[in-house]
Amino acid sequence: MRDVFQQELAEVQDRLVDIANHVIVSIEAAVRAFGDSNVQLAEQVIAADPLIDDKASALDELAIDIIARQSPVARDLRIVVSALRISASLERMGDLARHIAMLARYRFPMQVVPESLQPTFVEMGASDIEIAKLLRDLLATQDLSIAERIEASDEHVDQLHRDVFSHVLGTEWQGAAHTTVDATLASRYHERFADHAVGIAKKVKYLATGDWVGDEDAHAALSPEPVQPADLG
Amino acid sequence: MRDVFQQELAEVQDRLVDIANHVIVSIEAAVRAFGDSNVQLAEQVIAADPLIDDKASALDELAIDIIARQSPVARDLRIVVSALRISASLERMGDLARHIAMLARYRFPMQVVPESLQPTFVEMGASDIEIAKLLRDLLATQDLSIAERIEASDEHVDQLHRDVFSHVLGTEWQGAAHTTVDATLASRYHERFADHAVGIAKKVKYLATGDWVGDEDAHAALSPEPVQPADLG
Repeated sequence: MRDVFQQELAEVQDRLVDIANHVIVSIEAAVRAFGDSNVQLAEQVIAADPLIDDKASALDELAIDIIARQSPVARDLRIVVSALRISASLERMGDLARHIAMLARYRFPMQVVPESLQPTFVEMGASDIEIAKLLRDLLATQDLSIAERIEASDEHVDQLHRDVFSHVLGTEWQGAAHTTVDATLASRYHERFADHAVGIAKKVKYLATGDWVGDEDAHAALSPEPVQPADLG
Repeated sequence: MRDVFQQELAEVQDRLVDIANHVIVSIEAAVRAFGDSNVQLAEQVIAADPLIDDKASALDELAIDIIARQSPVARDLRIVVSALRISASLERMGDLARHIAMLARYRFPMQVVPESLQPTFVEMGASDIEIAKLLRDLLATQDLSIAERIEASDEHVDQLHRDVFSHVLGTEWQGAAHTTVDATLASRYHERFADHAVGIAKKVKYLATGDWVGDEDAHAALSPEPVQPADLG
């Protein structure tokens, strides 16, 4: 029974890594489509997104199935529940890559952002790709030093996001309103992409360090009807 | 045992309704702070957000605790898992109300958007508030006709979101770049707020109609290693 469960956890992990790999492909193509104004590539990202959604749903079904059959408790249960949350964030990262691709498609054959903002977006896109790859590695290895690198890269993306606004709000900005709108949305999508990766990294860290133990005490104190030991199944 | 479980499910439901009530308070105050440029009210929304986060975390702990002790299966398990997802969306709705309040605080004593956009944002804000209240009622009653009203209101918000862009991209728009940025972000926050409510409404519908049954067949077909009946615990 225990072996079956471990095998199923490995299957869950493999699937998370698989979804993360699809997110890498999407963000790489979206960033290239955005930077090069490549509408075919943008279409590919948009067309591929439902596959990520389906894979995330299938993983959710597997996770629920595992909980139902194996009745895991303690850390084992938290691992499976975390997989549900991680799949939701990966699915959302796929959506954000699609949003970036949609901007590229919408403005084609024009560039989404003007020359003056290209270097910042190139850097932001490269950081999002790096973050997606780090995330895949983190999910594959559970190496917590990778989680820290994701957090550091996210801080860099946050800085670039602020740089975009500094530039757009600066005196030299000549962009038309639609360019300002596009730059705002594009920057926001890139920034949220990185945020979701940090959220996942925190969940992986939390599973590894077991620091939810304190949270459970907090929960008992917050609950209007704390569960009594007699209720334990 | 069964009675204890039903009592615990009722507790989960009560807590979701409680969090939804806090989200209503936040979005109402955020919309007023945004429309009236009321910085005190904006501060209140920002200060109140951690309470929503804490309540969502506490509910997650309770849900995990229930799964561990009661080992629910089938629909019972799906109800508890859905509660985890719903709490995550409610928490995010609280964040978006906070983002709207932060725009109001940031631009104070100026209005965030110019006179010409005020009517659209008043309508959008009113729709978000209505959606939050409908969501609370849906969580309290599971009345699926409310889910449809949420979806209809979301379509209205989407239309208003498009109206904002039509206006900003129109020939009469005289807004400075920072006003364009603010209007873009504000509109996006209002729209995402409604999206999350629709996501929750879909989860409630899915629980009520049990249409995940087809999904499970799909999952078995997608799974590289379908679970054999012999594995059933």
